[in-house]
This record gives sequence, structure tokens and C-alpha cells, in this order.
Amino acid sequence: MSAKLHLQLLTRESFAPFGDIITTRGADSFLINNGTTRRFHDLARVETIGEAPRTLVNIFRGQPFAPPITIAMLERHPLGSQAFNPLHPRPWIVVVAPDIDGKPGQPQGFLVRPDEGGLIGVNYARNTWHHPLVSLEETSDFLVVDRGGEGVNLEEFFFDEPYVITSLDCG
Amino acid sequence: MSAKLHLQLLTRESFAPFGDIITTRGADSFLINNGTTRRFHDLARVETIGEAPRTLVNIFRGQPFAPPITIAMLERHPLGSQAFNPLHPRPWIVVVAPDIDGKPGQPQGFLVRPDEGGLIGVNYARNTWHHPLVSLEETSDFLVVDRGGEGVNLEEFFFDEPYVITSLDCG
Repeated sequence: MSAKLHLQLLTRESFAPFGDIITTRGADSFLINNGTTRRFHDLARVETIGEAPRTLVNIFRGQPFAPPITIAMLERHPLGSQAFNPLHPRPWIVVVAPDIDGKPGQPQGFLVRPDEGGLIGVNYARNTWHHPLVSLEETSDFLVVDRGGEGVNLEEFFFDEPYVITSLDCG
Repeated sequence: MSAKLHLQLLTRESFAPFGDIITTRGADSFLINNGTTRRFHDLARVETIGEAPRTLVNIFRGQPFAPPITIAMLERHPLGSQAFNPLHPRPWIVVVAPDIDGKPGQPQGFLVRPDEGGLIGVNYARNTWHHPLVSLEETSDFLVVDRGGEGVNLEEFFFDEPYVITSLDCG
């Protein structure tokens, strides 16, 4: 048995309970460098706690998925946020869930599409349930900003009945 | 009066005194997420010191330059590193200089070209003299990871005689 997970388009408002959207559209900005650069400032709340925390910059190279996409587990990082920034103008999928008594509640699936404002990334807030990277169409690189250091920074939860994304249609 | 600044191609070795190159090529990696993602791990030494430091994630939108490009000043950030990651597959220019008694020495100019391994970013080490963003060809977005917090995190130095990049040829 499995349940269908319908996708919705990612918006700043719909994602707000789970973290930040990293994009220029709708973001505060100001000119720097003698007017030659516009700085869209402080787009994500980077958090690193625990013992000997460091901010890591990594590149994740994700294999492409295609429907049907089975969502069998979610994970979270109790010691730090994790930001994913696509380095290719291709859509990708974000699945998150609220926490209910230490377990993920009903998952929400978002289709992330680059728009005329540029690429769109997300920053999962510390301890937010989310699915690992789901690229679409082609193998895709993401710049990932997360936390290194001592301590256990991974928790996984496997659903009794997995969810399945059967279509990329939104709405 | 001005002096010509010749460009060289960016390599990991040539940039090592100034910080890190952020790219998959030649980087350590391992598989995660049940084998669906390759993680090129910990590519930059992010440093944030001083009072109430935070790691910031920003997008810088740089206007394009074209030769002749005048290098009249360099800047540095005493309280944190600053990483620039292009979000478009276009070349850009990095100018850095060693510190000599609190002032920049002879600048070095690097042409950064995306290669078959993907986009190439750099992380300026804390307190490393560098020129502000120099995009080429078109207006280009960069994901920038740097430091917020209290205190003065900017120092500028203006050359008595500027340097000029007259050509994008390397060698």
C-alpha cells in the first residue's frame, strides 16, 4: 500500500514553516562595489550547533529521478541547517514534513522551477524533516551549505506505507 | 600611469595561497543517499570570527566587465572568508594579492572558466586581498557565502597606479 503525494509549486510562503527560499525574487537587495554588483543579502538562516561546529560548503551531484518517485523515508539534522542551491536551470523536488512528537507528519511535496529571477534553492531549517536530494531530468549539481563537527547530526524515519509522486503536475 | 596585469588560468595549486577552489574536479567525494547522490565534501574553509559571527548566504548579481578592466583597489575581510560560486556557466575574473606589511603586494589575475567538471567557484580566505566581483560577458549571479555580525569586516587599499587587464588571453 502507498499513498499518492501531490506536488505544489514552491513559494516563499508555503515553505516558510520549513526554512528559507534562496532566490533573488522578492528578496531585499542593495548595490555594492561602486554600483557594479547588487547584493541580495542574507537569504538563509544558517545554523550550526553542538560540539566543534563548522559551516561546510559542498557540491552534491544528484542522479535524476522520474515519476513514479517513492518517498519511503525522511531525514533531519538536529545540529544544523542544510541549504541546497541548484547549479543548473532545471526543476527539482523538495519533500518536507512537520514534526509531530518526534516523527514526521503528513509530507508536503514541492516542485521547484527556476524562474526569470534565476535559480531557486532552499535551506532546510535545523531539525526539519526532509527527503534527500531529488533531481529531475539530468544529473545535476547543487551547492550545499551544511554543518560539520562532532556529534550525531542525522536522524531517519521510514514510513510504514511509503508515499509516491506519480506526476509532476502541480495543483 | 598604469601597469598591465596579465591573466593566468585558475588552478588549485596557483590559488592555494589565497583560499580554496570550489569545484568537483580533483575533489574528494563519496556516495550518499542510497547511492543516488555523490557528495564532494567540505570544499572550502569557511571562517567567521569576531563578535556575534554568523554565516550568510547571499546572491550577488554582477554587471559584466570587458577589457580594458582597471584594477584600482583591492579589499579584504578581516573577520571572515568569502566564497563566490557562479550560477551561470560563464567565465569570470579573480584578482588577489599577497599581504606585505598590511598592504597588497603584486596582484595576480586569474581567468576562471567552467570546465567539463562543472562550475568553478573560489573561497577567499579570511583577510586575503581581492578585487570585488568581476563578471564577464553577461550579468551573472553568484551564490556568496560570507560572514555577518558585529565589527568592521572591510578594509580597502587603493593603488597609487592602477593595474589594467587589457586582454582575456592567458599565458
